[in-house]
Amino acid sequence: MAIDFKQDILAPVASDFAAMDTFINEGITSKVALVMAVSKHVVEAGGKRMRPIMCLLAAKACGSTDLEQHRKLAAIIEMLHTATLVHDDVVDESGLRRGRPTANATWNNQTAVLVGDFLISRAFDLLVDLNDMVLLKDFSTGTCEIAEGEVLQLQSQHDPETTEQTYLNIIHGKTSRLFELATEGAAILSGTPEYREPLRHFAGHFGNAFQIIDDILDYTSDAETLGKNIGDDLMEGKPTLPLISALQHTQGEEHDIVRRSIATGGIHQLEQVIQIVQQSGALDYCRKRAEEETQAALAALQHLPESEARQALFNLTQLALHRIQ
Amino acid sequence: MAIDFKQDILAPVASDFAAMDTFINEGITSKVALVMAVSKHVVEAGGKRMRPIMCLLAAKACGSTDLEQHRKLAAIIEMLHTATLVHDDVVDESGLRRGRPTANATWNNQTAVLVGDFLISRAFDLLVDLNDMVLLKDFSTGTCEIAEGEVLQLQSQHDPETTEQTYLNIIHGKTSRLFELATEGAAILSGTPEYREPLRHFAGHFGNAFQIIDDILDYTSDAETLGKNIGDDLMEGKPTLPLISALQHTQGEEHDIVRRSIATGGIHQLEQVIQIVQQSGALDYCRKRAEEETQAALAALQHLPESEARQALFNLTQLALHRIQ
Repeated sequence: MAIDFKQDILAPVASDFAAMDTFINEGITSKVALVMAVSKHVVEAGGKRMRPIMCLLAAKACGSTDLEQHRKLAAIIEMLHTATLVHDDVVDESGLRRGRPTANATWNNQTAVLVGDFLISRAFDLLVDLNDMVLLKDFSTGTCEIAEGEVLQLQSQHDPETTEQTYLNIIHGKTSRLFELATEGAAILSGTPEYREPLRHFAGHFGNAFQIIDDILDYTSDAETLGKNIGDDLMEGKPTLPLISALQHTQGEEHDIVRRSIATGGIHQLEQVIQIVQQSGALDYCRKRAEEETQAALAALQHLPESEARQALFNLTQLALHRIQ
Repeated sequence: MAIDFKQDILAPVASDFAAMDTFINEGITSKVALVMAVSKHVVEAGGKRMRPIMCLLAAKACGSTDLEQHRKLAAIIEMLHTATLVHDDVVDESGLRRGRPTANATWNNQTAVLVGDFLISRAFDLLVDLNDMVLLKDFSTGTCEIAEGEVLQLQSQHDPETTEQTYLNIIHGKTSRLFELATEGAAILSGTPEYREPLRHFAGHFGNAFQIIDDILDYTSDAETLGKNIGDDLMEGKPTLPLISALQHTQGEEHDIVRRSIATGGIHQLEQVIQIVQQSGALDYCRKRAEEETQAALAALQHLPESEARQALFNLTQLALHRIQ
């Protein structure tokens, strides 16, 4: 049975989700016209807003009925996510994101760096208003780890010695940590600390699965379906799981080609590397790992009481996996 | 009588200042080697650490005797300052700061953007540990305003219509606001809220004077004394007070040359513009404004009880002004 996003995932929090936009718009309000214009541009370029939806669903799954505070938290999560995207686009020198021109392309790197800084600061400012020291500590530590994950990714670029463990550390920081904050934060605000750990485990494994799937798609998808080109990561010499796994599944010349392509990046031998990744069994291993992470995420959810919202989190996890099935 | 930095300014807080470095080094500790290497590089490239010194002096001027918490706050201030410098150097494409290669030049823009993000997040993380909601709100709002000031500066680049008021808004955000946080934060942590306002006024005017003086030096100094070249701001089309004032002090062809040089930037007619700025009376006006801001800063200090630390803040303010005397 196909999962329908609106009906099977969004439904339990549809009105809260709609109301969240008000908080995002308030959040990006500024006396400085350029700040607002850029913030508006990047916030509107957002995707399905998976992180805030997950935050709202987690709140309901914790038994919260009034989500007023959680709506603010969801808006904060989306602003933090947007800030990291804006800086990522500067870092990756990207011109397009989801088919729209990026902030650095529409304005320039300077503007993108500084508006990203504004969004981080404003997110913290709104977080302080929620007046919860435990929540603040969780987020201030979490955002450090997100930045560290991003730098670890840079540090590992062009390094064929990168291990699967280092890869997991990278994706935990750059992807899973914010999912964790979204759901663990919901438990904190709901006054149900007993659900913090199961929700963190759920979100951490969900994030890992989500990123592994993204990295698989970099070797299998086409530009039209994903808005990114096949081999983008390879071009940048990013040792993602498909390449790490390809190194483990090959020997001799093929092994050397993959190693060299991580070390040098670029389009040199691009097609050959993609073929090796696709035919060596590397992608099968990646799919297996994505499924394991998905199963671990679903298992963690079982520690929450049964509810419509928990089912929706279940459905969202399966929908994410379906992208490679 | 010449003011001696160590004896007349640093002395009352010398041991606290030395101890602060421990907190900075703890603050930049990270599991990710590249994060630590870059953080260490940029923190060590720091100047006289005027902001943390001002924080510590303000704490003593408020009557605090045990500065354990203030040392942490001073370290946080310096980390925030360092983070803005790292991002500024990316924004300005600077290769050198105080004669040392910048982070973006030593590594690359990507690394500089992400390590700057780390330093902002870590500063907030340490701030949360100080466990004071009033302090947190002051800082979270303040860092938004700092980012807004920086974007306003970008927005005003190449705009010859920029008014003195807009200039003041820019320098309040990009420079004075952090001085305000340093001293107002000290009053909050000292449990002397009655000194928040006088210290904020002091620091705000001090920061304005400091930045106006910096902007004057861009038209009068040479590279050897300041580590920056004459005309740097002009090259970038930044409408600082010397240019805004030059527009008000000139007519006809000279006026048009200054207008055009703001609009286009670059070295076109560089020498001519510098000559107009120097001979039109613009710099006299700027010096007058710097002195007014200095006097306002000193007047605000009078609202604090007399002490060795207050005298040191007094001396620091006069030392800053001496740069153009």
